Amino acid sequence: MVSKDMLRYGTVRSCIRELFEYGKQRAAVVGEENVYDFSLGNPSVPAPEEVNQAIRNIVNELPSKAIHSYTSGPGSNTARTAIANNLNKRFGTDYKFTDLYLTAGAAAALTAVSRALTIDDKTEFIAFAPFFTEYSCFATTAGAKLTVIPADIPAFQINFELLDKSINENTQGVIVNSPNNPSGVIYTEETIKGLAALLKRKSADVGHPIFIISDEPYRELVYEGKVPFIPHYYPNTIICYSYSKSLSLPGERIGYALVPGSVEDHDDVYNAIAGAGRILGYVCAPSLMQHVITRCADIKPDLRPYIENRELIYNGLTEIGYNCAKPSGAFYLFVEAPNGDAQAFSNMAKQHDLLIVPGNDFGCPSYVRISYCVDHDMVKRSLPVFKKLMEKVRA
Amino acid sequence: MVSKDMLRYGTVRSCIRELFEYGKQRAAVVGEENVYDFSLGNPSVPAPEEVNQAIRNIVNELPSKAIHSYTSGPGSNTARTAIANNLNKRFGTDYKFTDLYLTAGAAAALTAVSRALTIDDKTEFIAFAPFFTEYSCFATTAGAKLTVIPADIPAFQINFELLDKSINENTQGVIVNSPNNPSGVIYTEETIKGLAALLKRKSADVGHPIFIISDEPYRELVYEGKVPFIPHYYPNTIICYSYSKSLSLPGERIGYALVPGSVEDHDDVYNAIAGAGRILGYVCAPSLMQHVITRCADIKPDLRPYIENRELIYNGLTEIGYNCAKPSGAFYLFVEAPNGDAQAFSNMAKQHDLLIVPGNDFGCPSYVRISYCVDHDMVKRSLPVFKKLMEKVRA
Repeated sequence: MVSKDMLRYGTVRSCIRELFEYGKQRAAVVGEENVYDFSLGNPSVPAPEEVNQAIRNIVNELPSKAIHSYTSGPGSNTARTAIANNLNKRFGTDYKFTDLYLTAGAAAALTAVSRALTIDDKTEFIAFAPFFTEYSCFATTAGAKLTVIPADIPAFQINFELLDKSINENTQGVIVNSPNNPSGVIYTEETIKGLAALLKRKSADVGHPIFIISDEPYRELVYEGKVPFIPHYYPNTIICYSYSKSLSLPGERIGYALVPGSVEDHDDVYNAIAGAGRILGYVCAPSLMQHVITRCADIKPDLRPYIENRELIYNGLTEIGYNCAKPSGAFYLFVEAPNGDAQAFSNMAKQHDLLIVPGNDFGCPSYVRISYCVDHDMVKRSLPVFKKLMEKVRA
Repeated sequence: MVSKDMLRYGTVRSCIRELFEYGKQRAAVVGEENVYDFSLGNPSVPAPEEVNQAIRNIVNELPSKAIHSYTSGPGSNTARTAIANNLNKRFGTDYKFTDLYLTAGAAAALTAVSRALTIDDKTEFIAFAPFFTEYSCFATTAGAKLTVIPADIPAFQINFELLDKSINENTQGVIVNSPNNPSGVIYTEETIKGLAALLKRKSADVGHPIFIISDEPYRELVYEGKVPFIPHYYPNTIICYSYSKSLSLPGERIGYALVPGSVEDHDDVYNAIAGAGRILGYVCAPSLMQHVITRCADIKPDLRPYIENRELIYNGLTEIGYNCAKPSGAFYLFVEAPNGDAQAFSNMAKQHDLLIVPGNDFGCPSYVRISYCVDHDMVKRSLPVFKKLMEKVRA
């Protein structure tokens, strides 16, 4: 009576969601202070006060129709111009507002880009483990295939040999996510240069551009080193961005797809993304939030709470004896399961009301993800539990 | 290099959009007061002050994280409860919040429902001309076929004989839109009873429920008669609703799909819609707007400006000699092209900077649509132009 695929997508809960719901139940039983929930990537830093002040000002200053009416499908020119100006200031680019297509967050941008670049049922996209679990459903439901390159452990950069072998004439795009969810690792400039060189060579081999689809919700959340701006290295880069993490607005669904002028057949790529946005039923990105971004495009997030948490949990776990990926950005720490089995280790932790996500769904079954976008005190309280777990494994 | 379908959807502008853009250009040349733009269905009534006050209160009263964080995929329980309570009060139903799935407007709800109900590439949906042009793209891109039942002219009810013949074992849903865009007509209780009886019989024949998908963005915009509440007549009704018109929030993208408890296999249908919402990349409906609806679910729109416009344009055109469909709801007047050819008549009107949408794309090539959600003075100023056109046709 209904689509089997849609029913499955709607019924099978993600492992993250399961843990989060379990945490809420346990909190009701044992008390909130006794549950250590590191499951969700929901920013613990509130939206900057400038954002809420912008909302007040917009409602007080503008006529209601200017705030809440339809914008054009790609978004208002003023919001897109504000974003282009911000990028141009920071990266020395000369993007125009017509290079930007506003979306309901990065997930919407990725969905639209996947559809736009899917030629037929032979189309392939490539992702690198560990990767955001929804990539596979975005690619599959676009009618394409997602090829996963196994994780480059322990550096979590890119295994170029495997990538080289995986590209063929049907490869349309390679999805890059740096700073990375779930590893917290940033691709080095060397990695990006290597990737660009390989893709240039391969594009020439297959006779069409292979796009980099750069998923960048964590671009501003950087604690160590720099995030190379990929269009500087590779012209056929499409950026999918979200203000969910940088302005702590995950529920508001506001972000964009950027198609730089350097992209081959720029207008076709841009228009196909717009077409996908249309058939996906988006109409336009939420209009009040477009006004907010117009006024807040230059606002920087307050990283202090994440820096403090990162310090505490990284040093704490390392001291206990855990092996962690270098946590340079985002708000995740990717930790090797000391028993070698992430699912079993997550289950063991759950017994102590410590909720950490096994890397299995991220394509990395020997690591667990710790989201440290949480209350600092909870991080403190959790360390003895991590210690107990390590002792248990070693016993 | 890109999907041909997506490129086409992104490049071929709707006729409505073309006219609207043309109007903006002409206004720059001949002055805004000399362009009579009846093309868009953008509410001219601003959002009720309660809505903007709710936004101020939410930002002032709630912690930032409570406003802007992810909600669960189907929407916050409080927003869904507020909507269920409003419906239950008005329609004597006993809907639960778990029957509601919040969406980024009715387009998102229709897209998700189309995908949820598409079993395979033989699946068919049925729409009645005149119909909202995007229906065909929602159905087609879900992988299904849209069958259009020709318009029942001049009453714009339903031609049951043709409907009867068009239903087969692959028919999954019949899309109903009353008050109707573009005709402004409301289906009578007799029509809804007839439809329910026919679909009950046909469902039994084909051995599975044929759903009514009721697209109801104009439910509250009623000037004459009543809008029958379809779930009272037919249990397998799924409602797609939007606050775009009732609260004048079209840019904010907030609405819902309602799966009443009476729907067969309720949970499967609901979960398949949720699965579709997930793979379409929606994540959740915009969170601040969920709070707004929590507080404003009971607010009624100010219909006075539409009532005044309707009176003026309907009487004015009728007096000149135009034949109009009975404009009972929404903010559209559907007018027979006096020369019998809507496209030609729209072109002729365009020469006089009068912008009206030919019914061709709505499946009704002998009528034009006039959106009277516009400035009252423009309606006044336009009447002599309508008169001139009629004289031209008669000459």
